[in-house]
This record gives sequence, structure tokens and C-alpha cells, in this order.
Amino acid sequence: MPRIVMKFGGTSMAGIERIRSVAARVKREADAGNEVLVVVSAMAGETDRLVQFCKEAAAIHDPKEYDVVVASGEQVTSGLLAMTLQNMGVKARSFMGWQLVRASGVHGNARIEDVEGGALDEALKGGMVCVIPGFQGVSEDGRVATLGRGGSDTSAVAIAAGVKADRCDIYTDVDGVYTTDPRIVPRARKLDRITFEEMLELAGVGAKVLQVRSVGLAMRERMPLRVLTAFDDLPGTEIVPELGAEDMERNAIAGIAADRNEARITLTRIADRPGTVAAVMGPLADAGIQVDMIVHAATEGAGSSDLTFTVPRASLAQAVSVLKSAGIEGDILTDDAVAKVSIVGVGIRSNPELAARMFATLAERNINLLAVSASEIKVSALVAEDEMELAVRVLHTAFGLDAPRGE
Amino acid sequence: MPRIVMKFGGTSMAGIERIRSVAARVKREADAGNEVLVVVSAMAGETDRLVQFCKEAAAIHDPKEYDVVVASGEQVTSGLLAMTLQNMGVKARSFMGWQLVRASGVHGNARIEDVEGGALDEALKGGMVCVIPGFQGVSEDGRVATLGRGGSDTSAVAIAAGVKADRCDIYTDVDGVYTTDPRIVPRARKLDRITFEEMLELAGVGAKVLQVRSVGLAMRERMPLRVLTAFDDLPGTEIVPELGAEDMERNAIAGIAADRNEARITLTRIADRPGTVAAVMGPLADAGIQVDMIVHAATEGAGSSDLTFTVPRASLAQAVSVLKSAGIEGDILTDDAVAKVSIVGVGIRSNPELAARMFATLAERNINLLAVSASEIKVSALVAEDEMELAVRVLHTAFGLDAPRGE
Repeated sequence: MPRIVMKFGGTSMAGIERIRSVAARVKREADAGNEVLVVVSAMAGETDRLVQFCKEAAAIHDPKEYDVVVASGEQVTSGLLAMTLQNMGVKARSFMGWQLVRASGVHGNARIEDVEGGALDEALKGGMVCVIPGFQGVSEDGRVATLGRGGSDTSAVAIAAGVKADRCDIYTDVDGVYTTDPRIVPRARKLDRITFEEMLELAGVGAKVLQVRSVGLAMRERMPLRVLTAFDDLPGTEIVPELGAEDMERNAIAGIAADRNEARITLTRIADRPGTVAAVMGPLADAGIQVDMIVHAATEGAGSSDLTFTVPRASLAQAVSVLKSAGIEGDILTDDAVAKVSIVGVGIRSNPELAARMFATLAERNINLLAVSASEIKVSALVAEDEMELAVRVLHTAFGLDAPRGE
Repeated sequence: MPRIVMKFGGTSMAGIERIRSVAARVKREADAGNEVLVVVSAMAGETDRLVQFCKEAAAIHDPKEYDVVVASGEQVTSGLLAMTLQNMGVKARSFMGWQLVRASGVHGNARIEDVEGGALDEALKGGMVCVIPGFQGVSEDGRVATLGRGGSDTSAVAIAAGVKADRCDIYTDVDGVYTTDPRIVPRARKLDRITFEEMLELAGVGAKVLQVRSVGLAMRERMPLRVLTAFDDLPGTEIVPELGAEDMERNAIAGIAADRNEARITLTRIADRPGTVAAVMGPLADAGIQVDMIVHAATEGAGSSDLTFTVPRASLAQAVSVLKSAGIEGDILTDDAVAKVSIVGVGIRSNPELAARMFATLAERNINLLAVSASEIKVSALVAEDEMELAVRVLHTAFGLDAPRGE
């Protein structure tokens, strides 16, 4: 009997009417002969309300007590969904995080260590739907621990792995993963299927559908995911370890990502000698500043060169101050009106022509490349922020991603 | 080192400002060298909100899931109070009901079986204030169990007994126990001290200050209680096993109770033979209807008589229908415009003159007695409902309970 985990976000759980519609969806899967576990978020807005209480109580507060307070939101929706299911004639019960999810690490941002599958197995074999609050577990010292904001997706994947589910379905308020941000490209298309690696790159560089941590965990556990809307009957997007024969027709490029959260730093006239780049990157790493694209091209015979890299826009001021204190030679130029545009696809690995096509497409529209980086499944270009949307649109068309007119 | 339990109701916990003022009160007791445990209710209104969710989810719902939902209210206030105390420099932590309060019986209306004092002892000895959500524990099957509405008072007393506290202070929104309802007698006076038995009679017949169950438990455990307001610095009322030498000056009568929640049933012309009263009371008991005052005076030589008794007003219709199905002979007369007025005091036991004074006082004002009953520490008279307030006032004056003018 197939075993599935269904995860519902806060928008789907906001109020009894919506919980009833979630219950109907769960009933359908149970009636279809699946063993079903449901992981739920708190009602939309509830976690914010609880976090606000904590802030008012004490500006700096004990994360153990914070966990006690905010974990209550999912406790409420778990009980409500279980009783709603029972009311529809579905055998169901809730389990609390402290009854089965062992967590470790810091309170307020804990990691799931282990899920006690025994009680769940027994309940599932008895034909029971198991409802579990997302985002929480019990710490080593026996106290309530939460996983950090947005952690319900990760809970769902960890629980799916813990009970050896066949699949984990994440119901949310979008209907799947798109080839790019539909606000930039109205003809963006929903993807039927995408690999974990592609999803990580699309999520990491801007597409906010799933929490990055949950995708990483699903990839490690090889747990197939689906992203679906809770508000309609649409197939959604499958996220799988690798594409299969049935995906042969899919574009080599899964999507175009755009990220405004970048700032560029250029150090001019730094010495061309071993260790120069390390001398710059070391202090930044020590300060916890993540450096992304790095371009260092020495000019033959000049004895000095420019070093360009990007940092998160929010860390720009700190990065400059770190570099100044480190006594970096040369001038420090900064630019925060930049954006990163990336093509993402498993096809890049085997097809160098794709990067070339990207650069040619941007050049045709006179879009200047401020920096370039590439990985196995992604090629990124740093462009002026006001050219970002144009860049995304032309690349979306050039790689054949536009939806047919009228779709 | 004295060990005390402080219990705060929903009004005292309604919002962060009030929680801060509760924390200040707790800090004062801790600074004074007490070991302090605090039992808290949910924010006023929160439990109602959660109960409403349950009702909307399913008219008839699984009490185990109901418990999961409604227990969250006290979980939130426990965490918030603990972090507020820490913020004031008081060592504090919360414990959840499932970590230490073992409960038994039906979900939604469970009884506390045992409190695991070990972890609390250790924390208290380490100078830690322990904050515990009222109204909940863990059931035999390891699930969240609640004690029924208002159960936080009972939690507090059970926890106080479990940790062998010296005293349990119940902070509420009234400043103590009064000689009668101040809405009826503006010159009602706050009592400094009252016995458990007196308190049970005053609570049972109308004075709604403490949950009856918590007083019964405190009596069995001989746990001294204090009722105090959370909103002012007033001494409140002590509730003790028995009065001491210092109470010699206290009135023999502690207070006057009034209860409108009564209805009278009179069965006329029933046979004067053994078993008649039992034939009436049996079916009512089987139907779970509580019968209170019973008057059955056979008229010498008549061969038949009247039987009068009272039942809760809400059960009147059901009682009549039970009596009809049981084939009770004679007519069934009912009257729901009645009320019960009682004098309550440990002095009644040793002083029969007190009952006589009560009847004389009522007779002087031409108040008709529809029925009378008496126990060791209480004498009750059933009167017409529209004469109840007058009866309370004249008795209050006759027994010397009126506050001096200007107090």
C-alpha cells in the first residue's frame, strides 16, 4: 500500500473552512488506498502573533521558552484537522512533535535527528490517518524544540524519510515550480518535473516555493517531492532525483533564475602574487559574509589586477568595513544596483553550447556582463539591475521556455 | 525555605503588560526567600476562541483532539511568563503538563493522579522559579489531557500537594471571599479567614470565587489556600482546615449564600407507606438528576401526604418527564420561581440557636419558607425567588455581618 506524506502550509490551514477543504483532500488520498500522514503548519498569521508576544515579553529571550510559545500554533491545527477528518468518517489522530520527533541543535533552529516510526507505523497499519504538527520536535533535554521559520517543509520531508514514505506532497499557495518568475515573464510555464539539483539552484537564486533546507534533505534521502496548490486540482511539479526517459523532450534548461539580492565589490590594482585572493576572502569568511561570484583576471605583465566579487546586498557595508580593517591595498569600488541572472538545467553539464547561447543572447541585446560564473548545472551572469528583467525575458525566449500563446 | 504555589487566572494573564505585572509579583515572593512555583491560565478569551474552533470543526468531537487544541492556551502563557521573569533577572523555566502531571479519567475532564515532583524539586533547589500550565497533564496513553474548564485552580492545588508546598495562593480578579454577594448586599465584608467546609458550602451555593473541586482537593490534602486579587496589594482571604484561637472573635456565621439555580417539585397525595420516597428518588438518581432539599412530612392518620424537593432549574423538565414515565401516583406540581438562601458557618454545629434566629428573622419580614434543610455547618431555606434578596439582606444584618458604615 503506497505511503504518502501530505504537507499543508499556513494559508491552507487559515480557518475552519480551509481546514475542511484540506480534510477533503486528505480523505481522497486515504480513500484511494494510500497510507496517509499529514504535516501541518499553524494558521497563517498565528506564528507571527506568537513571535510578537515573545518580542514584547523580552527583547532578548530564552529560545527554549520561545519554542514553547510558538510551537503551540501547529498543535492547534493538528488537533483541529484530526477532528475534522473524524467528522468526515476518516479514522484519524494527531501526534505531537514531542511524542515522536527527536531534534538536536539549538532551540529555535533545531534539526530533526530521528522520527520514531513505531507508533506511526502501527497507526497507519490500523488504517489511521496520522496528523503531525510541522516545525517541531523534542530536544535532547526533553523540551519542545522548533526548527526555525518555514521549517514545516523540512519536517514533512524528515517525517517522510522516517516512515519510509513513497512520496512527500507539499501543498502550498502556488501551483508548482515555474520556468521563471511569472511577474517578470507572464508566459512563464509550470514545470511538470525538475531534479533536486535544479530545484536547489532555482530556489537558492530566487524562486521561493520550497524551503531550500527541505529540498537538500529530500535530495539526500532520495525522497520524491511534489509541489501542488491546496486550492485547486492541478498536477503540480514533481521534484525527482533524476530525469527519466519520459523527460527526453524536456528543455535542457529547466528555468531562468533572477536574484536582486546581490552587490558587487571591485578591488582595483591589487598585486599579482600568490595569496592575494586568499588575503581578501579570509577576513570576509571570518566575518560570516558569503562571497558568491568571483572574477580575477590578471592582466599579462601589468603586475597588478582587479578582483571583482559579489556579496549579499545586506552585507555590503559590513564587507567594506571588514576589507578596510584588513588593510586591503588598492581602491574598493562598490555597486549595489546589480542583479544575477542564471540559466539552470541538468543539460548544461553535457552541452557547452548552452552557456555560449546565453552570452550571445545577452550580447545581442547589448546587455553588459559585469561578472560570470558557472557550475555543473548553472551559468550565471551579473548584470545592471535595470537590465535584469530584460535579460530574463530574452533568455526565457531563447531557451524555448515561453508557454505557447493562449496556454 | 518556604515553598509556595502561586496561581494566576486568565484575566491576570491577558496580554504582555499584565504578564509583566504577574512576573513582578512572582519576583517579590522569590526575592523574599520563597521557593516559588507558578501555575498559569490561558489569556482571558483564548480558551473560548480555541473551544469555538473545535465546535466549528465538528459539532461532536474527539475529546483527545479537543485537549490537544485547548491545552495550547496555557502553553503559550507559561513560556511568556518564564521569559518575562528571566528578563527581570529571575531564574525561571517552564515545564509542560506532559512533562510532569499524570492525569487519568476521561479526556476533557481528567483528574490529576500524580505530579512528578523530582524535576521540580531539583529546579526549585537550584533557585529556579517553575512555571507550569494549569488545566492539563498527560493521560495514561501518553496524550495531552485537560482537566475541564476552570481546572487551573485544581491543577494549582494538586501541584502544591505534589511538591509538598506550604501554601497555595490563588490570584484572581476578586480580592477575596465575601460574607455574601456584594451585588445583593453592598455592605458585604471580605472575610480574613474561612474553613474549607464553609468555603465549599459558600462556593456550592453561589459564591463563585474558586472552583469547588479545587477546594475539596485542598481540604483532603490539608493544603492552606489564599484567595487574592492579582491587581492590588490586599491580604485576601485565607482558607484553612480549621479556625484557630485568633479567630475567636469571628462571627459564628461566615456568610450568607443565595442560589437561584433551583426549582421545586411537589408530589401531592402520595401513599404513606415504606418505600414511597425511594420509588421517587430512584428514577431521578438513575437519570443523573441531583435532588437537593427533601421535605416529606406525613400527616398523622391521613394515609397520604405531600413530598417536596428541589432539583437544578435546568433539569426541571427532564425530572418531570422521568417522574411521569416512572408512573408516580398523585399530582406533580412545579415551581421554578424559587431560590435557596443559606447561613453557613462552623458555629452552627455547636449552636442550635443560630437556626432558630434564622427562621425568626425571616418570619419577622413575612418571608414564607417553602422548604428547609440543614447540615452540620449550613441551614438553608427555600423562598420565593422575588423574596431572595430581601432574605439575604435581613439575615446578613441579623448575624452581624454588615461592614461598619464607611468601611
